[in-house]
Amino acid sequence: MRDRLDLPHHDGSALYVSDSAPSLGSSFTVRVRVPRGAGVARVLVRTTPDAEPEHADLERTSEDEVESWWQAEVVAHNPVTNYRFLLLGSDTRVRWLTAAGVVGHEVADDTDFRVLAAPAPPSWVPDAVLYQVFPDRFARSGRVDVWPDWALRAEWTDEVETRFPDSMHQLYGGDLHGVAEHLDHVESLGATGMYLNPIFPAMENHRYCATSFDEVDPVLGGDEALVELAEAAHGRGMRLIGDLTANHSGSDHPWFRAAQGDRESVDAGRYHWIDHPDSYVAWSGVGTLPKFDHRSPDLRRRLYEGPDSVVARWLRPPFSLDGWRVDAANMAGRYADVDLTHEMARAIRDTMRAERDDAYLLAEHNHDATQDLIHAGWDGTMNYMGFARPIWQWLVREDRTVPLMGVPIDVPRLDGPEVVASIDTFCGRMPWRARVASLNLLGSHDTTRWRHVAGSRERALVGAAMLFTFPGVPSVFMGDEIGLDGHDDLTSREPFPWDDEARWDTETLEAYRALIRLRRAHPALRTGGFRWVVVEDDVLVYLREDGAERLLVQVARDDHEAVALAADALGAAHLQALTGGADVGADGGRFVLPSHGPRHGVWLLA
Amino acid sequence: MRDRLDLPHHDGSALYVSDSAPSLGSSFTVRVRVPRGAGVARVLVRTTPDAEPEHADLERTSEDEVESWWQAEVVAHNPVTNYRFLLLGSDTRVRWLTAAGVVGHEVADDTDFRVLAAPAPPSWVPDAVLYQVFPDRFARSGRVDVWPDWALRAEWTDEVETRFPDSMHQLYGGDLHGVAEHLDHVESLGATGMYLNPIFPAMENHRYCATSFDEVDPVLGGDEALVELAEAAHGRGMRLIGDLTANHSGSDHPWFRAAQGDRESVDAGRYHWIDHPDSYVAWSGVGTLPKFDHRSPDLRRRLYEGPDSVVARWLRPPFSLDGWRVDAANMAGRYADVDLTHEMARAIRDTMRAERDDAYLLAEHNHDATQDLIHAGWDGTMNYMGFARPIWQWLVREDRTVPLMGVPIDVPRLDGPEVVASIDTFCGRMPWRARVASLNLLGSHDTTRWRHVAGSRERALVGAAMLFTFPGVPSVFMGDEIGLDGHDDLTSREPFPWDDEARWDTETLEAYRALIRLRRAHPALRTGGFRWVVVEDDVLVYLREDGAERLLVQVARDDHEAVALAADALGAAHLQALTGGADVGADGGRFVLPSHGPRHGVWLLA
Repeated sequence: MRDRLDLPHHDGSALYVSDSAPSLGSSFTVRVRVPRGAGVARVLVRTTPDAEPEHADLERTSEDEVESWWQAEVVAHNPVTNYRFLLLGSDTRVRWLTAAGVVGHEVADDTDFRVLAAPAPPSWVPDAVLYQVFPDRFARSGRVDVWPDWALRAEWTDEVETRFPDSMHQLYGGDLHGVAEHLDHVESLGATGMYLNPIFPAMENHRYCATSFDEVDPVLGGDEALVELAEAAHGRGMRLIGDLTANHSGSDHPWFRAAQGDRESVDAGRYHWIDHPDSYVAWSGVGTLPKFDHRSPDLRRRLYEGPDSVVARWLRPPFSLDGWRVDAANMAGRYADVDLTHEMARAIRDTMRAERDDAYLLAEHNHDATQDLIHAGWDGTMNYMGFARPIWQWLVREDRTVPLMGVPIDVPRLDGPEVVASIDTFCGRMPWRARVASLNLLGSHDTTRWRHVAGSRERALVGAAMLFTFPGVPSVFMGDEIGLDGHDDLTSREPFPWDDEARWDTETLEAYRALIRLRRAHPALRTGGFRWVVVEDDVLVYLREDGAERLLVQVARDDHEAVALAADALGAAHLQALTGGADVGADGGRFVLPSHGPRHGVWLLA
Repeated sequence: MRDRLDLPHHDGSALYVSDSAPSLGSSFTVRVRVPRGAGVARVLVRTTPDAEPEHADLERTSEDEVESWWQAEVVAHNPVTNYRFLLLGSDTRVRWLTAAGVVGHEVADDTDFRVLAAPAPPSWVPDAVLYQVFPDRFARSGRVDVWPDWALRAEWTDEVETRFPDSMHQLYGGDLHGVAEHLDHVESLGATGMYLNPIFPAMENHRYCATSFDEVDPVLGGDEALVELAEAAHGRGMRLIGDLTANHSGSDHPWFRAAQGDRESVDAGRYHWIDHPDSYVAWSGVGTLPKFDHRSPDLRRRLYEGPDSVVARWLRPPFSLDGWRVDAANMAGRYADVDLTHEMARAIRDTMRAERDDAYLLAEHNHDATQDLIHAGWDGTMNYMGFARPIWQWLVREDRTVPLMGVPIDVPRLDGPEVVASIDTFCGRMPWRARVASLNLLGSHDTTRWRHVAGSRERALVGAAMLFTFPGVPSVFMGDEIGLDGHDDLTSREPFPWDDEARWDTETLEAYRALIRLRRAHPALRTGGFRWVVVEDDVLVYLREDGAERLLVQVARDDHEAVALAADALGAAHLQALTGGADVGADGGRFVLPSHGPRHGVWLLA
């Protein structure tokens, strides 16, 4: 079994990059580690200031039995500095060290490493563990008894309605007081914050069709309930992230009603019309979700420009939201030959940072978010492509009867090398700072439940181990931690079964808690560098490393040929088990890891 | 030896895309060919209108013994429509058919196929064969006798001066009358047009440091000589492309002199100042080449906005240039946080097309031009990355003592698979329309001579065979066709040895003529689709196909294992030799191609 311990490595973590958010014109240090067996005699860095290639030699600054370290200074001459390394050996070949790995042929610029001279994501974000709450379905306090006309009232234990449109109108009556009452659970899990699906008034249970951005839905307890929740959460040191639909409003929003009433009005300018008043652009063609036209200065001002905007207001006391997740951020601001997404994102960020410098801006994006992460103002994205989708395809249940998120096919099966290529394809194209500030997730309110995808507790926990040991903010969709099942996005939204203990998979819950404790105890798991060590069909091994410690993670979906790693190449004398098994000593100079699966293990290199 | 005849295929040529420049909002047809052995049962196309993924099934429209054809309609909803195909078989795997090939893992959007709803490149461009002329060194008519103060006058047979700065001042006195006098040679080669290095007055022999954009250098014979040349060329049906430095002027340009004189002047606004008057941004830090600031409305107006601009004026009679090659187009308009390159390119294009709808706009770009080809207004680029650099690395002389263009190392050696990966990496990221409107080249005034790189006539002709059978406009640097040698960019600029017959490699010249005749006789070589068939270390085989004919091309750098292709998979009964050998019949159902090298062969499939 071949390992990758002889491959030179660089990523954007602090071991390798001295400043991940340099000011324009300043310089930063880039470092490359070159294993002894790499056959590398010279390293150059290629940059492209003003889009003109430049090459400079790195200096070898240290060398020991395991590896040498090389470094050079790079100037952040442009807002985006892209760079890669040229590895020269004694033979006639060259290799490029890129963010997608070491490549033996000429490579395009899109897999260059990237450092952005733009405001950094808040420092708390990479350390966070978020818990996603779908407000109607998390907890009902009994303190609110508001049932709007459109609602099909359901009891907490009723089955989820899956027939459209009733599925949109079924209301269980979860509220924000209820969320506040259950913070013990969230805190005991180890989450450091919550991401709330929309809380503005709307006429469907998901609330992505806001009829106002100015108040919390009375059904959820109104502004007062949010204040109570925010105070309770913040009192425990927990963060609270809101959810904003910058792409559209509900068709029942007064803005849209007024817009339909007068083609010449300022209101009408906020939407994209095909044929006023009845034909207009809408999210996915769904008429209840008319699409905003961000060319409208009035829309921008109301929604996200300046301290009077929606974006700003909810970040201030007494609500004090800690950030926004922007819904459909991939398409918001885009229509035909209009593309204002990047301007919109930067304006949202600037407004948020003017309110508080630690506000987090997260973009929903369901395919390749790279270009937006590089050029717009998003701190991070929901990393479906670089995390969820590859891992689904590695760990999917045997019968694969699960729709692939966003694609009209069943989940295909990928083996380890293809999974890693998929992850590296997307994560390599993200600036590191955006990778560690992006949400990793195994599922959400928009997907089949992770447990259903994996098909068993054991396989589900392999994915969970990756979730909590990967770069990127782990996000747990409410109920995943107790092993809830749901075969599509609607059944995934079932009410949390607080009182039905039989439905709690306590083994899964304890495993989640242990993994989150591990992550929170080891900064290297949160912000350390990431190196693949072994990539085989059924087993993956990787290193998380910072200046203080080195952790080795093994995940296996099945039994597999034993992984044996040379102690000298790994630069360790002993593997101390942190979870998932026993310590491993060097046997004849090699560490032999467990070979059964599904399982995971994490060791500290000593 | 494995071939790729079982891989599904799509490219941007007319076989597969019904309209390569659709108007915004219109639809076009995309087609995929699926070989019988491909194991494909269903094909979907993924598009991302407004950056939201959509998937649609293709319909199978025909099927025969060799392959099936599938098609779907795609709407050009945005200025850039990117798409790729999802190939489903009967097993659990999926494959993506992308512009970089068929891939078994998740892929990023940057290798999607792309169709642009933007003005198309002129229709004559993909059919062109261009001849590059460096005016001081091509031909001296004797009708001009102007020797500026800065010039170090040289006789035509003097050695090229390689010591800086004399290398910049050595002047041989070639002129445009001289070019006009030698059109027989250019025409007999088969070229359909010429690309001229700069012809504006300057104080160095390369003239990339213009002191005026308003007249032809008197040293070249002035405006009158250009008129004579243009009339002579156009009289033969030949095109003439000029060379514009949009990135900088010479420091002796009156604009820059005036700019240095007055910080507050309109003149000063045309340049990027660090500390006026003596410290300013310059091309590669070379003080004689002060960089333009395209934020200046005055600069834009003078240089390229509107009918009074430099760009417009030279396209009109009596000069009637057929297009512009823009020097340093990668960096022009870019400095630190200013990036106006795309706006500049589109403005240049719009000005050109307002003058004449068949004007060609070509961007010099020395690394990954993809993003600029997609979003700016360039028709094409000088395809160093997708053509010259990979082929240099495949065919480089044994001792490799040649600097790699733009990189401070000797040319490395790549084998066939890496060469193909390199070509596909860059060409796959270009819209097809930009690929066929880009210049392919083996060398230029900026490089070592191709003959020197290859090290022998035989290997050089393998590269030439690729030059004339690839998608993209072949460009021949004056003298390459007679096998001139030059070990760097300066020695490559030696005067054309018209009178020294001993230096003419007539075998190379005849081979060039034959290859160009072949290209001009077979539209499939110019605009047909491109499919790799065999990719081995020492031999490459590919197909060029349009609706009328199919051509098979073999290039080998060395002796190699014989290539045998199944007649039924190829869909041919006989290979009729067009150049480079004999006809090949199906022997036991297989075509066995020659196995010696270096060599090339082209066959018509019958």
